[in-house]
Amino acid sequence: MKENFTQGGFTLPGEAGYEQLTLELAKKWGADVIRDSDGTKLSPEIVEAGYRIYSTICIIREHNAFAEAHPDAQQQTFLSSDAVIAEGPEAVIEPLKGYFDEQFQLNDSPEALEYWQVWDRTAGEVVPRENWSYADGRITVTGCTPWHRYTASFLCWRIWEEINMYNHTTNHWTSEHLRQLDPRHPLAWEYLQDWLEKWCVDNPQTNVVRLTSLFYNFVWIFGEDMRRRSRFVDWGSYDFTVSPAALKAFEAEYGYALTAEDFINKGKLQATHRPPTAHKRDYMDFIQRFVAEKAKVLVEIIHRHGKQAYVFYDDSWVGMEPYGKYFASIGFDGLIKCIFSGFECRLCAGADVPVHELRFHPYLFPVGLGGLPTFSEGGHPERDAVAYWLHARRALARQAVERIGLGGYLHLTQGYPEFVDAIGEMGRQFRRLKALHAEGAPALLPIRVAVLHTWGSLRSWTLSGHFHETDANPLIHVNEALSGLPVDVRFIDFQQAESGGLKDVDVLINAGFAGDAWSGGEVWNSAELVAEITRFVCEGGALIGVAEPSACPGGDSFLRLAHVLGVDIDHGEYACHAPWSFEVQPAPFAVCDDALAAMPGARLTDPETKVLVAEGGAPRMTLHAFGKGCAAWLSGFEYSPAAARMLLELLLHMTGRTGKDAGISDDPMVETAWFPASKTLVVMNDANAPVEANIEWPGGTTRVALGPEELKFVQV
Amino acid sequence: MKENFTQGGFTLPGEAGYEQLTLELAKKWGADVIRDSDGTKLSPEIVEAGYRIYSTICIIREHNAFAEAHPDAQQQTFLSSDAVIAEGPEAVIEPLKGYFDEQFQLNDSPEALEYWQVWDRTAGEVVPRENWSYADGRITVTGCTPWHRYTASFLCWRIWEEINMYNHTTNHWTSEHLRQLDPRHPLAWEYLQDWLEKWCVDNPQTNVVRLTSLFYNFVWIFGEDMRRRSRFVDWGSYDFTVSPAALKAFEAEYGYALTAEDFINKGKLQATHRPPTAHKRDYMDFIQRFVAEKAKVLVEIIHRHGKQAYVFYDDSWVGMEPYGKYFASIGFDGLIKCIFSGFECRLCAGADVPVHELRFHPYLFPVGLGGLPTFSEGGHPERDAVAYWLHARRALARQAVERIGLGGYLHLTQGYPEFVDAIGEMGRQFRRLKALHAEGAPALLPIRVAVLHTWGSLRSWTLSGHFHETDANPLIHVNEALSGLPVDVRFIDFQQAESGGLKDVDVLINAGFAGDAWSGGEVWNSAELVAEITRFVCEGGALIGVAEPSACPGGDSFLRLAHVLGVDIDHGEYACHAPWSFEVQPAPFAVCDDALAAMPGARLTDPETKVLVAEGGAPRMTLHAFGKGCAAWLSGFEYSPAAARMLLELLLHMTGRTGKDAGISDDPMVETAWFPASKTLVVMNDANAPVEANIEWPGGTTRVALGPEELKFVQV
Repeated sequence: MKENFTQGGFTLPGEAGYEQLTLELAKKWGADVIRDSDGTKLSPEIVEAGYRIYSTICIIREHNAFAEAHPDAQQQTFLSSDAVIAEGPEAVIEPLKGYFDEQFQLNDSPEALEYWQVWDRTAGEVVPRENWSYADGRITVTGCTPWHRYTASFLCWRIWEEINMYNHTTNHWTSEHLRQLDPRHPLAWEYLQDWLEKWCVDNPQTNVVRLTSLFYNFVWIFGEDMRRRSRFVDWGSYDFTVSPAALKAFEAEYGYALTAEDFINKGKLQATHRPPTAHKRDYMDFIQRFVAEKAKVLVEIIHRHGKQAYVFYDDSWVGMEPYGKYFASIGFDGLIKCIFSGFECRLCAGADVPVHELRFHPYLFPVGLGGLPTFSEGGHPERDAVAYWLHARRALARQAVERIGLGGYLHLTQGYPEFVDAIGEMGRQFRRLKALHAEGAPALLPIRVAVLHTWGSLRSWTLSGHFHETDANPLIHVNEALSGLPVDVRFIDFQQAESGGLKDVDVLINAGFAGDAWSGGEVWNSAELVAEITRFVCEGGALIGVAEPSACPGGDSFLRLAHVLGVDIDHGEYACHAPWSFEVQPAPFAVCDDALAAMPGARLTDPETKVLVAEGGAPRMTLHAFGKGCAAWLSGFEYSPAAARMLLELLLHMTGRTGKDAGISDDPMVETAWFPASKTLVVMNDANAPVEANIEWPGGTTRVALGPEELKFVQV
Repeated sequence: MKENFTQGGFTLPGEAGYEQLTLELAKKWGADVIRDSDGTKLSPEIVEAGYRIYSTICIIREHNAFAEAHPDAQQQTFLSSDAVIAEGPEAVIEPLKGYFDEQFQLNDSPEALEYWQVWDRTAGEVVPRENWSYADGRITVTGCTPWHRYTASFLCWRIWEEINMYNHTTNHWTSEHLRQLDPRHPLAWEYLQDWLEKWCVDNPQTNVVRLTSLFYNFVWIFGEDMRRRSRFVDWGSYDFTVSPAALKAFEAEYGYALTAEDFINKGKLQATHRPPTAHKRDYMDFIQRFVAEKAKVLVEIIHRHGKQAYVFYDDSWVGMEPYGKYFASIGFDGLIKCIFSGFECRLCAGADVPVHELRFHPYLFPVGLGGLPTFSEGGHPERDAVAYWLHARRALARQAVERIGLGGYLHLTQGYPEFVDAIGEMGRQFRRLKALHAEGAPALLPIRVAVLHTWGSLRSWTLSGHFHETDANPLIHVNEALSGLPVDVRFIDFQQAESGGLKDVDVLINAGFAGDAWSGGEVWNSAELVAEITRFVCEGGALIGVAEPSACPGGDSFLRLAHVLGVDIDHGEYACHAPWSFEVQPAPFAVCDDALAAMPGARLTDPETKVLVAEGGAPRMTLHAFGKGCAAWLSGFEYSPAAARMLLELLLHMTGRTGKDAGISDDPMVETAWFPASKTLVVMNDANAPVEANIEWPGGTTRVALGPEELKFVQV
């Protein structure tokens, strides 16, 4: 290869006041695009330097004057009050007590009050409307049953855009609180279109409008008390899309009315981690269509002005999931995803959109999302960047993206020359990987993996949010491992599994805890589903269950696939039933004990189940031959390079395949991707120590020496 | 006191062939009674030595000739086959496959077959009778849904009395397998009455007939495979009482028919640790009445012969629970309970019967129940005896019994002089305690504790079986701690709690895991129950919840008393809801961390809940002021002297009382009972080291020095 991969596919955050630095780093990192960031502006000097320009717009924000003139155009949400115990026949509820009053304001307009509810949570019954009244911010409930607990569900305005609120409260900003408009409000929608039109006219230098993101923020509810400031945060739920107008439109279309309880759900709300109700599914589809329709109009305005529209898939992303049914119809020219992990790279790379761009971490900010220093005292941004890169590169070796970039305040990189160098090196590796993919795809093993959960393809690769926000769920670890493995991966839901979706699948994975959306919860009451997976494995398929796969109380086993897995989990129902005793048997491959978890109630349902790992008398990893197929159960799964290798070995063992076809190392810390068209092995050392490894590939075996964490392109 | 407490209230197991030893030890231990044991006989030399004589009878056993002549008079049970997967439209089930064929034999008589069922366990539906047929020990199911799992529920004969089976298989006995008769069978019942009549005539020397126990053994199901030999064992369930005759009698009386599924319960059976169905409650009452009626007839025969009838409450105890509604009506003269623990002493001592006798452990057998050596190489029977005595003596300091004793092969004590001495010393201490009680009861604190669970008073003190069989349940540890505390203890069920049962209660305790009989399970769906306990605490009562008290999924909190406790437990339902942060606060008394357990999902529902112990970010012990009362939550409770002291301190703290009124030591390892009538302090050192402690009692403070594990009677 002649190219030195120093130029292109890189988006640099420019910063006014630091023009020289901006242009210097643009050159050093091979940028072809300069962008602004939340809180930064570009100066004419930068804009006119010959780079393509991205300009960031948060479409529903920064219209405070309009919001003040039209407060009813602001966004809303349902909330539930904390419970009040009735000591007599009357109880008084202050709905917003305990919520952050800078975020919420009661919506006690007549059309909102229609949707308010008061609940007797002890009896689980809604209180008749005639038994409560509202005045001056207080609800008085009469006819109470003494000692019962009462809550109110109510609508309120959200008077502070949540990302602005987060930045303010985290970084001690003192600027005006930004409000957000609901595009469902007719005047607001007219206003926003006009505003965008005018913006395009006023910004002729902009090549790409970078929408951050669309309309509705993920749900983030603040409390008054600092001991529980962030009361609820879910990157995938839909509460912040609601309004009386939305509810009326829904009712008109669907023929039934949603109530507050469809959102409040006994105060638990409807988190993405939990299986949705049928009503919630309807509502999500309703919102997704609305978001797509409105976004399409905005994209058309942008296109009409000769600009491109890229969307940044974070923050106000609700309803525009890239794997949703309506995403492609919007007509975006590019999708930008900020990433910490491999699964996020795959999420971006696989979306149906022309350009895929990754925004790397760390963000150029004094502190990171977790609150630890990055570009400030005690920070090591170069270490952070490399740590994230180790996750990203193995995913990029499997599937290409077109672009990478950074965000934030460029001046913060001053004094961090190692960070500057590290980013330069990542850029070069990224470009070379991209070039390899362009010559021909990397070899894939003939192993088709389907990850089975409630959301299926809608939430391909992700659960909801970043790795560190969901890392208590074994599935995100499984996804992270899969993101860098040479296997075909798809995400299917239970309905698909039941109706032919297992046809082209070799290995089915179900990983989650009892009752969650990833394990599946009550869907496992479906005899058809259980029978179909029983058939699938009996006829030769492979099943991997992690933690509490197919768990659902009420059956004759807790794991509804216990007969397939050869394992069940006792939560007390086995009282007095002795478990099968067992001995741990040698594993057919290297087992990574550390990846597993404690599951004290695990027990065998078949004495022929092979236990590979056990702890305290309970199995932690098992294999079970079942008909012509087999099943594996893992008590947990925590991502590490060794855990990913174990998963690969398990996939190979269960399907009777060999890793050689896609390139495989004899050192579990070394990962390989084999690009047959360019006869190149991409060899990655995941260990922080030098290593020499033999790489088996279809043409033979090649010995490769690598430095700590080194990536090598080896032509063979 | 002049007495030296060397004589009386002691039952010695005599042994033919060891006449001298028998009489020697009878003297040494101060025995007034000599008994035989399972497997031993008394010789005329012993019988005529002037002691009262107990003779052991297991009424339904040792009638093999009759059983062989009348095989349909044997006892039965329902069993469920293991599941068979239908790969096509037909499935074949071998009902008894996997069960121990020396214990069970199919009952395929026409009247039994009526009760057989075949289940599609995947669909959760019973298979219509026309879709299965039975022949030659096999069930053929037709019209199957492919890939569904099918089970058969069937009746079978139990052809080996379970205690005999256990002794055979454990001790390698080779004698004939003993069978057992069902007193419900009319011929068997006639036979048994005649037999007892004749036995009484033939055994004029016997003063007390020691019934071991009555008719129906606790449930003990053996498997064929040694990897799961003891498939199911429950000391409190009723499966072994069933027969077509019982089912028909039940139907005639109750107006509805029980089915196999009422017993099989998806293969899980109906263990005592799980809340019963309404049908099971009816059936238990039906059996309890039957057992009491028949037992009364036997007792009358015994009385007619001038003998007394004592019952040994173990083995075939089902239906004769000493706190059951019909127990007193039987007319027993005495209740004998074998004990390892304090709660068993209280269980025996509190029963409504004239004489209460404890049979101490270890049993004079080469190995103990757990299979470890006692009177054989490696055994230390004196250590075992003292360990059990430490548990028993603190209970005996609270409530007296009339008698103690031993069982087994007396000759095994030879070569264990320390054991012989230890028993002598225990006898003296027992007699002195008994004398103290006779002079006047020990002081009780004005703290009335009610332990709340499904079974209420029926299972006072016990769960089902001995401590080591149920020690995974925190409640048995709580009961063990309470058995030696100077507080009033009662056991109430949920219906009582709901209907005025909390009137005279100061502290309510609910201790168990979600869904079990001790926590309560679905009963917590009762708004009345929740409201009543809310009222109770709000008006000044105290609530102690251990592990998962009041747990029941489906509400707005997992613990239905979360609002009272200030604590809830997250099993995933709180997804995305942040917990209240907290800091551990100093405890108002010495906390025994070791008694608590891991409960990772525990979280505060009120920021004002005081956390006394936490681990890994989750609280383990909390206090919560609630209205005029308060609540405490403990993640677990494992008995130890320090844990018992913590419970006492907690009770004192929550009720605002002082321990002085009943005598209390400043050393938590020293327990005290204050007998005001005899002005005696009973001071017990629970530690294995010498100690000096100050005992506060109503008359002042007394300093007492005690050797390791010493009990002292201190007159003040």
